[in-house]
Amino acid sequence: MNIEMIRAAAERLTGHARETPLLSSPFLNEIAGRRVWVKPECLQHTGSFKFRGAWSAVSALDDRVRSRGVIAFSSGNHAQGVALAAQLHGVPAVIVMPRDAPALKIDNTRALGAEVVLYERGSEDRDIIGAQLAQERGLTLIKPFDEPQVIAGQGTTGLEIAAQAQAVGVTAADVLVCCGGGGLTGGIALALEAEAPGLRVRPVEPEGFDDVARSLRSGGIERNNATSGNLCDAIITPQPGDITFPIMQRLCGPGLVVTEDEALRAMALAFVRLKLVAEPGGAVALAAALCRQDAIEGEDVIVTISGGNVDPDIFAQSLDTLT
Amino acid sequence: MNIEMIRAAAERLTGHARETPLLSSPFLNEIAGRRVWVKPECLQHTGSFKFRGAWSAVSALDDRVRSRGVIAFSSGNHAQGVALAAQLHGVPAVIVMPRDAPALKIDNTRALGAEVVLYERGSEDRDIIGAQLAQERGLTLIKPFDEPQVIAGQGTTGLEIAAQAQAVGVTAADVLVCCGGGGLTGGIALALEAEAPGLRVRPVEPEGFDDVARSLRSGGIERNNATSGNLCDAIITPQPGDITFPIMQRLCGPGLVVTEDEALRAMALAFVRLKLVAEPGGAVALAAALCRQDAIEGEDVIVTISGGNVDPDIFAQSLDTLT
Repeated sequence: MNIEMIRAAAERLTGHARETPLLSSPFLNEIAGRRVWVKPECLQHTGSFKFRGAWSAVSALDDRVRSRGVIAFSSGNHAQGVALAAQLHGVPAVIVMPRDAPALKIDNTRALGAEVVLYERGSEDRDIIGAQLAQERGLTLIKPFDEPQVIAGQGTTGLEIAAQAQAVGVTAADVLVCCGGGGLTGGIALALEAEAPGLRVRPVEPEGFDDVARSLRSGGIERNNATSGNLCDAIITPQPGDITFPIMQRLCGPGLVVTEDEALRAMALAFVRLKLVAEPGGAVALAAALCRQDAIEGEDVIVTISGGNVDPDIFAQSLDTLT
Repeated sequence: MNIEMIRAAAERLTGHARETPLLSSPFLNEIAGRRVWVKPECLQHTGSFKFRGAWSAVSALDDRVRSRGVIAFSSGNHAQGVALAAQLHGVPAVIVMPRDAPALKIDNTRALGAEVVLYERGSEDRDIIGAQLAQERGLTLIKPFDEPQVIAGQGTTGLEIAAQAQAVGVTAADVLVCCGGGGLTGGIALALEAEAPGLRVRPVEPEGFDDVARSLRSGGIERNNATSGNLCDAIITPQPGDITFPIMQRLCGPGLVVTEDEALRAMALAFVRLKLVAEPGGAVALAAALCRQDAIEGEDVIVTISGGNVDPDIFAQSLDTLT
């Protein structure tokens, strides 16, 4: 896992992934007490950064292997990223989802051309189902984060941040990244190490699901007690990855933690000030920039908005924080 | 008023206005029955395209004239555009607003460094107040649309559309533009005439406020019966401008008209599929692409989202159309 893989992924993504802009608002600067630069991956295809890693992984496969198709386990952003990347490559995608996943997410994944295989969360083992399908049909598993080509794809976000920060004259700043398994965080950290060493990545997690922050403190992989029950579900994973954790340990500053209410409030401010739709998990980095001023260093801070796939009722809940 | 003025405005805007991306979604393509390309000016500084025209006009002033300051009449997007353009130039801005304008809009305009002068809508004449202030302080009036340098600034949107459409291989398409007084519509039309003659601009207006569509049909300037009472207030003007109308008459295709409900539904789809916040008036072009399929020609359609400055309760109303 190195910068050359990220640069190669960037070449494969050119003309396929979107180069998202770097946005700002004087009103957010005022609240944060420093300049806030926002990298809105909610504007990426399928509404999250996951398309980058999916495209990177699918495009890196050998032609013959790829033509047999890919498989992924996900009910969320990774599912849609893999489905679209496979569709655009003209190869089959199978997405294994729990039967109780929201109907809209199942429909969206199917509409992106994927075959959705449903399993019973209580009585069936998705890994066994997936392994069997993969073997029968020769499908390649695309893991959500602990996979070098996926990390390389997410890291292209970091290449863009490096160039865009330089264009606005920012050479030293904390870069706050919404963090689940560490694919985006680790990928950006590797890209910035090579391209903008004055920019330091810091993972941001929801309160109660701060496995990465605790792992960085203890020096070993720590697990979360729960893996559900938070609005920021998109970035909740049991523990950091075996590949992503050493990268984060070597390159990232201390983790930051925000509450669900702070994430909802950040969503509302992204609505008012940036005209962007962020999902709760995608808003935690912005929330940290706005609410953890004393824990951040420097005159500038860069934040990712990692995704915008949020149900209307939860978005309405965030708007309620404005009144 | 010509293409050279737009090109010169583009040079002055470089590094100051944002180049907004050109977005798309397979789900919107499916609804529209053709490929839909979205130019999201809601992502422009101050949340609407108005910043382009304001920057163009302020930056075109002679140094000595500009240093005395500028003045504008507006309670909306033009106010914020002029306030920020003046602030960034380090010159005073006076914005004349009705006393009953929403407190948030007054606060925002002040927060962008402008002096807000309030008048009583019933008993005072804003033109007299403005003319007196302008004379006393030597302020230059920045008109909202019927002013060549403002049209030139809005036209830079068209230069970007021309280049971005070419990059995705679109050389012939209708370009639907949210239309009030015609500054954005006319500016884009002039830019495309020079840079992408296969792209034809068509103004889109809210039902009951279709002065431009009717004027294009009759060949003379037609007025609206009312100038308020519609959610699409941001793009409602009494009549097309004296400068903008001849441009539209020469270059634009027939106007399109959508209902408030269609605009709200388009806002909701921009939320779900593009992760963008559109205001009702900013969503009429997308609404036309989705609901007036038979009135549009070709395999592609390009639409502007002209702004995203919408109150949370109206946005929530748009989300209700999803259920």
